[in-house]
Amino acid sequence: MNTLKTQLAELQDLKIATYGKDFLLTWEKTDDEIRALTLVAECFYAMHKARKPFRVFDTGLAVSIFRDKSTRTRFSFASAVNALGLGLSELDEEKSQIAHGETVRETANMISFMTEAIGIRDDMYLGEGNTYMREVGQAVQEGFEKGVLHQRPSVINLQCDVDHPTQAMADLMQVKGHFGSLEKLRGKKIAMTWAYSPSYGKPLSVPQGIIGLMTRFGMQVSLAYPEGYGLIPEVVEVARQNSRKSGGSFEVVSSMEEAFKGADVVYPKSWAPYHVMQRRTPLLHKGDKEGLKQLEKECLTNNAKHKDWECDEQKMKLTKGGEALYMHCLPADISGVSCAQGEVSKNVFEKCRIGTYQEASYKPFIITAMIFLARLQDPVAVLKKLAK
Amino acid sequence: MNTLKTQLAELQDLKIATYGKDFLLTWEKTDDEIRALTLVAECFYAMHKARKPFRVFDTGLAVSIFRDKSTRTRFSFASAVNALGLGLSELDEEKSQIAHGETVRETANMISFMTEAIGIRDDMYLGEGNTYMREVGQAVQEGFEKGVLHQRPSVINLQCDVDHPTQAMADLMQVKGHFGSLEKLRGKKIAMTWAYSPSYGKPLSVPQGIIGLMTRFGMQVSLAYPEGYGLIPEVVEVARQNSRKSGGSFEVVSSMEEAFKGADVVYPKSWAPYHVMQRRTPLLHKGDKEGLKQLEKECLTNNAKHKDWECDEQKMKLTKGGEALYMHCLPADISGVSCAQGEVSKNVFEKCRIGTYQEASYKPFIITAMIFLARLQDPVAVLKKLAK
Amino acid sequence: MNTLKTQLAELQDLKIATYGKDFLLTWEKTDDEIRALTLVAECFYAMHKARKPFRVFDTGLAVSIFRDKSTRTRFSFASAVNALGLGLSELDEEKSQIAHGETVRETANMISFMTEAIGIRDDMYLGEGNTYMREVGQAVQEGFEKGVLHQRPSVINLQCDVDHPTQAMADLMQVKGHFGSLEKLRGKKIAMTWAYSPSYGKPLSVPQGIIGLMTRFGMQVSLAYPEGYGLIPEVVEVARQNSRKSGGSFEVVSSMEEAFKGADVVYPKSWAPYHVMQRRTPLLHKGDKEGLKQLEKECLTNNAKHKDWECDEQKMKLTKGGEALYMHCLPADISGVSCAQGEVSKNVFEKCRIGTYQEASYKPFIITAMIFLARLQDPVAVLKKLAK
Repeated sequence: MNTLKTQLAELQDLKIATYGKDFLLTWEKTDDEIRALTLVAECFYAMHKARKPFRVFDTGLAVSIFRDKSTRTRFSFASAVNALGLGLSELDEEKSQIAHGETVRETANMISFMTEAIGIRDDMYLGEGNTYMREVGQAVQEGFEKGVLHQRPSVINLQCDVDHPTQAMADLMQVKGHFGSLEKLRGKKIAMTWAYSPSYGKPLSVPQGIIGLMTRFGMQVSLAYPEGYGLIPEVVEVARQNSRKSGGSFEVVSSMEEAFKGADVVYPKSWAPYHVMQRRTPLLHKGDKEGLKQLEKECLTNNAKHKDWECDEQKMKLTKGGEALYMHCLPADISGVSCAQGEVSKNVFEKCRIGTYQEASYKPFIITAMIFLARLQDPVAVLKKLAK
Repeated sequence: MNTLKTQLAELQDLKIATYGKDFLLTWEKTDDEIRALTLVAECFYAMHKARKPFRVFDTGLAVSIFRDKSTRTRFSFASAVNALGLGLSELDEEKSQIAHGETVRETANMISFMTEAIGIRDDMYLGEGNTYMREVGQAVQEGFEKGVLHQRPSVINLQCDVDHPTQAMADLMQVKGHFGSLEKLRGKKIAMTWAYSPSYGKPLSVPQGIIGLMTRFGMQVSLAYPEGYGLIPEVVEVARQNSRKSGGSFEVVSSMEEAFKGADVVYPKSWAPYHVMQRRTPLLHKGDKEGLKQLEKECLTNNAKHKDWECDEQKMKLTKGGEALYMHCLPADISGVSCAQGEVSKNVFEKCRIGTYQEASYKPFIITAMIFLARLQDPVAVLKKLAK
Repeated sequence: MNTLKTQLAELQDLKIATYGKDFLLTWEKTDDEIRALTLVAECFYAMHKARKPFRVFDTGLAVSIFRDKSTRTRFSFASAVNALGLGLSELDEEKSQIAHGETVRETANMISFMTEAIGIRDDMYLGEGNTYMREVGQAVQEGFEKGVLHQRPSVINLQCDVDHPTQAMADLMQVKGHFGSLEKLRGKKIAMTWAYSPSYGKPLSVPQGIIGLMTRFGMQVSLAYPEGYGLIPEVVEVARQNSRKSGGSFEVVSSMEEAFKGADVVYPKSWAPYHVMQRRTPLLHKGDKEGLKQLEKECLTNNAKHKDWECDEQKMKLTKGGEALYMHCLPADISGVSCAQGEVSKNVFEKCRIGTYQEASYKPFIITAMIFLARLQDPVAVLKKLAK
């Protein structure tokens, strides 16, 4: 438990104002808060390894709303709330009356009478997921202020159209662990690059989350994608400003090779182009199946022009010493395994597979830390008690 | 925690024989038991507000069976069982083998080996929901008597064809809180009135629950509906007898305006006519889609003749001082919000919206109290300990 | 709590090496381990009856994966993990991304970061269910060895194509309780016999589980089925060897009457022939609906030739004193109740109904014991503490 002491000492000096707040975008949190989040997650990680429980609630609910399929985030959230002592209730919108014209405002309060946290995944509609989360937050804020709710639950973004903060923070823990500290990330090059996939409509939140977060620690962030595969411009602007403030760099390049050159970390991952997602939202709203099919066809045809955007052994040789840290949020489209041709070659993935599991393993602890920091008035004091 | 002392003192003097029993209809419970239920729920409400936990079980299951969609009751039940320390298991009849010809008798025992409470919503079939709950109760009673079960779980009615006791009891807490005490309900007028809705087949359990419960405390209950929209005659008779015993009054009138006149409380809410629900049950059984469609069409045509049964600002002016307490079990059909024309005008609803959230907020605490009173041999003693 | 003392004393002398292991087939466990399992389950049964909690975990998850419908095993598993203090998370393969080409290897780790036990039902595909469970076990073993998982969850077989150990062990508890001890099973005759059912494709795991387990305690096991309804040959061989070692006997006969003659226990239960299940697997894989329909038709026609394989009062008269213990894993196909003609006559079943509930009631305690023995390093010491 030596880690714990270091972590707790470092936490002492940080300014943290996360109590009672939501966690929607990493760039809405201060550097101190981001740092605290990794430290608290590391504490829980160490305690869990030592089989020390860190339950802080006797009872209370956490609600999850998944508007898209999920395995790892679902189980990470379930693990985190269980570890803290909360009971999990999933709001299945098909089973509930939300489909019956209930307003978000009302439902948000109806599920919150004894609720500490609401985890939401809503990444299908560009321009909507994050907005929906804010609506839920405003609704429970109103309920709390008007005395309907005895406590205002915190909304945790489990992936939206803009950011995927639980993933990006787990990824940050992985690189922090890999290089030794947040300070040692300074000057390290990370290649966040598009990769070919035979599927379509993958959300933008992972690459956006990565460039929005990794630019804060002095890293050299290289974003690569084929022409037409851009991200939401506002998020790119956030990344640009972050890198300026942190003394790092941010560039956009148009080949995987260029991004990989000398990279310490590579993150090759497919996504749908921003403008395609923009066209998709109204089609999804209208339920225009013909239009969606047409868009998918068009998009897959476009994708197919870029089958060379595959992370293979040759491209890996371009990286720092040929040994860059390979990252992926999983599941990856692995050539010859999960598809004929995909984001990564079989050999590269197999070599790095356990590393990606490790990367994923931080997610339950990051979510635990997010809820812990949002729900406890004096988290550091409680953590000290737990650590004993 | 001043409330707690008053509540506990009052509880002391009540005769409560709820231990080991089901909660199926409010009118099967004595006045003392109804009173105790509100007091215990108020205690839990106050403790929750003060962030005091009231977990009384270390382990044990609560099972829920929802044969109809539900958000607020589902989450209220989930919150209540979690607060008491029980784990929730939902019996999803599609996933389980109950659809495969298993008798209720058998299944009821199979889900009860470590179960303290079974919450059931079954409001779709007139003449069946409450019957089903009693069958479940008899089955676990047999299992308990024959030594198969170590404990006999209590069945909690989460809405049936006859009553909606968790709703009606939450509503009673709302009016009790609004007027100050159960004693102060004496002489107050409540208008339980049908309202227009563009949908069809809404259960009768809410209006029946309200007239069956509110008539017990000396209130002047005015039930209003258009010709042909009557409730189950036996329940109307219960209401009539209750009002006689309690020194209140019960009347049936045929216009919303008449019911609203001088009312202290209004509860405008749509429901399907009793005789329509009677015709619907065999059609649902047979799976006669054509017949159901025909019945729906006929019923919607009938409904449409009564679009003036809307709770609007003008009708609200007829109430006591124009300021009656507006109640609804939610979700309401709000004109211009959730439908073109519905049960309540946008203005009236928006003004009273937070009040309806407040009304809903009592439900988890009422369910907590129901389970608590059904499962603990000396609930008042335990409550005193918790309150310290 | 007198039982407890006897059980604990007996446990003291047993060699148990179940810590950190899976429970996949009863015949992979030593006699001591099987004996220990019944003793630990009996302890929990007695504690539960005395309303003594036996929670040993503060937090932690148990994951269940049901690839086939289930009520009793689902609730038994839910009860068991709740009783031990674990939170239950069901992996719904339709909701998750497992259907999207994720390999078992990856998913197994993704759901296991804070998981103590994984319960799996996978009985639809001959040659696959048990294999799948072993793959999951190997995957979490790798994750644990490589440091991805802090603990290696134990896989619990909740029914596969080969064995149904939670059922067979509950059945063993039932016969042990009925005759007084495992020693008293020696020389007792059990008839595991096929019975007619109007349905098709029932798994082989129950009869296989019974002959694989009951042959270990010196019982005279008589397996009966019509020509062509054989079980997996390897499992029959296991039974044959078990009976030789234990000093019991094992025979295969071709009429229910012969098996029933002088039997102390009868277990009449339908199953699909081994060779039909073999033909079914590739059809299910290919999604060949026409082929499946054809096979079903053929199989039902075959079944129909054996409608006389019904456990009725006349056949029961052939058993020891006409009073054999009737067993069934439930739900039974009861003639005139759940089907026109089935596995058992209405009269016989009604007489023995409560006994089958009793039989089922052991399952949650057996699962509790399985997890307890697999997760605790010194289970007997913990049990002693709990028993105080």
